[in-house]
Amino acid sequence: MPLETPAMENLSVLTGKYGDEGDQLLYKVLNSGDFLSKTNSHDLGNDYKHLLPKIAGKGLKYDLTVPFARYVVMNRHDLPLPFKRYQIQPVWRADNPQKGRYREFYQCDADVVGTESLICEAEIVLMINEVFAQLGIRDYTIKVNHRKILKGITETTGAEDKETAFLVAIDKLDKIGLEKVKQELAERGLTEESITKAVRILELEGSTVEKLAALKDLLQASEAGTTGVQELEEFLDILEKFNLPDHHVALDITLARGLSYYTGTIFEVKINNVAMGSVSGGGRYDDLTGVFGVPGLSGVGFSFGVDRLYDVMEELSLFPEETLTGTRALIVHFDAESQEYGLLSLKKLRDSGVSVEIYPDLAKPKKQFGYADKKGIPYVIVIGSEEISSGLLTLRDMRSGQQEKLNIGQIADRLATS
Amino acid sequence: MPLETPAMENLSVLTGKYGDEGDQLLYKVLNSGDFLSKTNSHDLGNDYKHLLPKIAGKGLKYDLTVPFARYVVMNRHDLPLPFKRYQIQPVWRADNPQKGRYREFYQCDADVVGTESLICEAEIVLMINEVFAQLGIRDYTIKVNHRKILKGITETTGAEDKETAFLVAIDKLDKIGLEKVKQELAERGLTEESITKAVRILELEGSTVEKLAALKDLLQASEAGTTGVQELEEFLDILEKFNLPDHHVALDITLARGLSYYTGTIFEVKINNVAMGSVSGGGRYDDLTGVFGVPGLSGVGFSFGVDRLYDVMEELSLFPEETLTGTRALIVHFDAESQEYGLLSLKKLRDSGVSVEIYPDLAKPKKQFGYADKKGIPYVIVIGSEEISSGLLTLRDMRSGQQEKLNIGQIADRLATS
Repeated sequence: MPLETPAMENLSVLTGKYGDEGDQLLYKVLNSGDFLSKTNSHDLGNDYKHLLPKIAGKGLKYDLTVPFARYVVMNRHDLPLPFKRYQIQPVWRADNPQKGRYREFYQCDADVVGTESLICEAEIVLMINEVFAQLGIRDYTIKVNHRKILKGITETTGAEDKETAFLVAIDKLDKIGLEKVKQELAERGLTEESITKAVRILELEGSTVEKLAALKDLLQASEAGTTGVQELEEFLDILEKFNLPDHHVALDITLARGLSYYTGTIFEVKINNVAMGSVSGGGRYDDLTGVFGVPGLSGVGFSFGVDRLYDVMEELSLFPEETLTGTRALIVHFDAESQEYGLLSLKKLRDSGVSVEIYPDLAKPKKQFGYADKKGIPYVIVIGSEEISSGLLTLRDMRSGQQEKLNIGQIADRLATS
Repeated sequence: MPLETPAMENLSVLTGKYGDEGDQLLYKVLNSGDFLSKTNSHDLGNDYKHLLPKIAGKGLKYDLTVPFARYVVMNRHDLPLPFKRYQIQPVWRADNPQKGRYREFYQCDADVVGTESLICEAEIVLMINEVFAQLGIRDYTIKVNHRKILKGITETTGAEDKETAFLVAIDKLDKIGLEKVKQELAERGLTEESITKAVRILELEGSTVEKLAALKDLLQASEAGTTGVQELEEFLDILEKFNLPDHHVALDITLARGLSYYTGTIFEVKINNVAMGSVSGGGRYDDLTGVFGVPGLSGVGFSFGVDRLYDVMEELSLFPEETLTGTRALIVHFDAESQEYGLLSLKKLRDSGVSVEIYPDLAKPKKQFGYADKKGIPYVIVIGSEEISSGLLTLRDMRSGQQEKLNIGQIADRLATS
């Protein structure tokens, strides 16, 4: 089921959910009418942070997850649980725009809440595979890990009180490299022994199955770690049941997914052989709605980074040329009579499901051809007096320059299939 | 071609385009960071209208037309003219919400700019007919008129200096009735003679062709009026060329379309036998981009009022029941074994293009049936030990209660077609 939530949320819903930096990046909307009516001279003499809540009660949404949690809580008595939804909408961040970072951009989320079943994790993998197949993206890896495995690593290496520091540091592994991560772990108070032991686990090699077997052994003293390994095994078992030719899933013990609300399986997708960070990510959370007063609603979600996927598809030339123009053919005419004849051809071709335009003005054919060219329209149908009398129109392939005389039905067939 | 423009525009683009009331209804977005940094004590001691431009530079778009005009002007050197686009996006107005009036709502616009050809007007009629056919709306009237005919009426009734007053007054005809319109025309300075003459023209009866013939005669002294009649005739001629079974177009001489930028043919669509004002409207404008510095770019556009169409479709029960849930069938199981068997059935049905869910938890069948019921899922596929051994699954029609034993291929066929 699709869901859309409003562009604006109350600032009380958004503030405090994305860290200090996130709060700064929220777009705030001025109250309507006289926004100063509820302020006094003290408010106006103070700094902007004091004034802000008096003059702006709403903000533009920063992601789809927090408004979704707000929606679930508001509708908890009516929603059939487990509740599934997908959502494709823009979000806004008052950031400095740069490649891959925009002030308005689309997110595409899918979540299931109200069940702890690992079938949902497996279904997320199915969804990713299906979406990428349709987009034409073939070479990618769905990296998975489990937050309880990471917790298990801290518990079995004597760093059980440093879980947050551990997550924050290894989340930077891709960006700063192992040596700097070790340095940061030391600065954050992990002993050299803990660090050495933990890094040995993070660097485990082998297949997913082999790594899970090793982890089972290494983390056996940690209840969390053992649960994490078991859940990943069960998740992979379920995945096997679907008999996919290739599920693209690989365990990456270093995957951390930052300091977000995840508590179980976590996912991140990397397109191989393309210089781009992760294009999508997600995971299981135990308590997304807790902050809005409904604790204990477990769920799992996934978000496609639409803009990064777009960039990747551009780089891999995956957008078909036809997407540049919706129009398959332009009808070019020589005079009022052939233009009039063209109107009926236009209607017939459209009725056959072919997307056709007619040049609306009486203009020289050269100008009309130039228009087709500029718009990237692949075919031109030329109608002159000869065509009118014979009923055979001239179909010109704008790329090859080839021309043929065809009747309207033949043209419809040709444009539908070629 | 589709087009999307950002949610936010500079306030300088939006302000002054929608009248004073429109300016009030614009949502203004606070500048990022310390929004007070460019203010002084004088600004803060003054009223909110003075402070506003110092602390807010952007606003949420109020319609799709003004941002479209801004886009055309910014890209005028790259756009192939005539330029066509459609646009389906939300717009925002800080209004008091009520039925048919929302703070965030969708508009669906289509425009062609850079040509005066009346073929574009005819294509708008084709588009409306095609869209309504697809939505299942059958009984509607595309009311047309021409701004130059209205001008002609003022010119030939001695009210040539009262064109604006005339437009504003007759635009209210539907709401306040003829007597009050006459009263308003008198208050606005039209003589009794002018009013009587004008009303006689507005009340012309007969078919569109008959009314145009009468107007040609009545407005012959007005160049504008004559042009208006000629253009409508040409437009209707072009429309005839498309051989539509019913083009739904009827001349309504009282149609005015308020005080907007229209200068030529104007349109409004009314669904017959439904208590709802116009659901869509549009027209030709000579100078939409003039305010942004590019004058003389003639175009014609049309906007579907998506929310009102939604309300009409609800009233006429035109939404198919299937749209309430995307899911055709739920797989119900009795235990871990039948759930596991169900996963492969799920995959096979989805591969056949059928939208199917499996209940993710191990729960009593009653609970699973209740879930299907609450979600309005029309079919349930029951899998138990008998079904596993025979390979024949139980397909239950949730509405009729009928059950059948079918193999997975038969179920796929049944769910695809029924």
